[in-house]
Amino acid sequence: MRLRRRQGTMEVLKDLTDLVVLDPKNNKGKWNKIFGNDRPIYVELGMGKGKFISEMSSRNADVNYIGIDMYDELVRKASDKAFEIREAAGQGKPENLRLVLFNIEHIEEVFAPQEIERIFLNFSDPWPKKRHGFRRLTHPRFLQRYQQILNKRGEIHFKTDSRSLFEFSLNSFADMGLRMRNISLDLHAEGRREDLVMTEYESKFADQGINIHRCEVLIGEASLQEHVEHLAKSL
Amino acid sequence: MRLRRRQGTMEVLKDLTDLVVLDPKNNKGKWNKIFGNDRPIYVELGMGKGKFISEMSSRNADVNYIGIDMYDELVRKASDKAFEIREAAGQGKPENLRLVLFNIEHIEEVFAPQEIERIFLNFSDPWPKKRHGFRRLTHPRFLQRYQQILNKRGEIHFKTDSRSLFEFSLNSFADMGLRMRNISLDLHAEGRREDLVMTEYESKFADQGINIHRCEVLIGEASLQEHVEHLAKSL
Repeated sequence: MRLRRRQGTMEVLKDLTDLVVLDPKNNKGKWNKIFGNDRPIYVELGMGKGKFISEMSSRNADVNYIGIDMYDELVRKASDKAFEIREAAGQGKPENLRLVLFNIEHIEEVFAPQEIERIFLNFSDPWPKKRHGFRRLTHPRFLQRYQQILNKRGEIHFKTDSRSLFEFSLNSFADMGLRMRNISLDLHAEGRREDLVMTEYESKFADQGINIHRCEVLIGEASLQEHVEHLAKSL
Repeated sequence: MRLRRRQGTMEVLKDLTDLVVLDPKNNKGKWNKIFGNDRPIYVELGMGKGKFISEMSSRNADVNYIGIDMYDELVRKASDKAFEIREAAGQGKPENLRLVLFNIEHIEEVFAPQEIERIFLNFSDPWPKKRHGFRRLTHPRFLQRYQQILNKRGEIHFKTDSRSLFEFSLNSFADMGLRMRNISLDLHAEGRREDLVMTEYESKFADQGINIHRCEVLIGEASLQEHVEHLAKSL
């Protein structure tokens, strides 16, 4: 995404001390103190303009949300969006939300082992050239890092419009021996999952009739166990 | 597929004693004796007109192939195809191929536990209505049967043009805890897997630009172990 650079973006972000975190490494292992409670932490890697993470945090007060992006202009847009959504919903400050300026490449510097419970990957850059495959956020080298920071109920929720990225990702999950669930090759097919919060990209794509692919990956032992028990009941 | 019924189909099949098996239950646990060797046995469930299984058997003399279909007219067409392909290749009788008239619903009556090494499911009926889901050949109730008759190197190779069947199948494999490999959402994308033998349907679909989906499922412990070792080397 091309961004128009506004003057003073960092100055604006520095003033938003309750919402925006510019030095997230300092919070490693202490995020529950930042939020002031022990609720589970869900993290979106590459939040873009922040609609998804803001809506999620507005809807679910019993979960703490962190949106991360490496572009300060996007963090700024996301902060605007967060206030806008809260206001529209007649809610106060987004206390269960933090927006973090950081490069995901070094995500393990921001979270301690098992500190978070869920990772959202929404419309991540597909990096279509084969030689750039290692940059895709579902590459095994990233999955290994996610495994470390996710807890025993840990899951990855992944969606994308890119068929090639989805194909790559399914193989990446499978090769890592990770259990998948709720695989969808056409998320917005009639009558399905209307409760899912859409990102900016997704609303646009859905309007254009572009297919959205989605799946959940079970990382933690507890989430896997729960899944197996649920399946056993449904047989 | 609608079939014109020819007079005397069963009479023709009865004469093809070296190739066509009309009473396959009698061979349960004895297929290696039928073939006269201990080579691995690969089975196509729902072979249709038989192009795939005939070409595979013509190309790979070190594997025994069995094509199964429940329609006698298709078994007859497949037998014609088998002779045609052998002749075109300048080969003799199809000694490593058997064509079986049988309903897959009762597949465990035809093969003993661990008797076969690979199952091909090519363009199986998608049974699009939800209430018919239990008839899809990748439904867990079928997968459980396949697990019994496949040996420790056992794999399922599945391809389909139906996105909804593929989606259903991926979830079915995942829910059963089966490991997948080489998942493809567009098998005939430029430059890929040109060595793969195409079915009649597939050639037609590929010409029309219809996407083919494919994946391999690792059932046996040995095939899983080999896969993990291969991955470890490639890292």
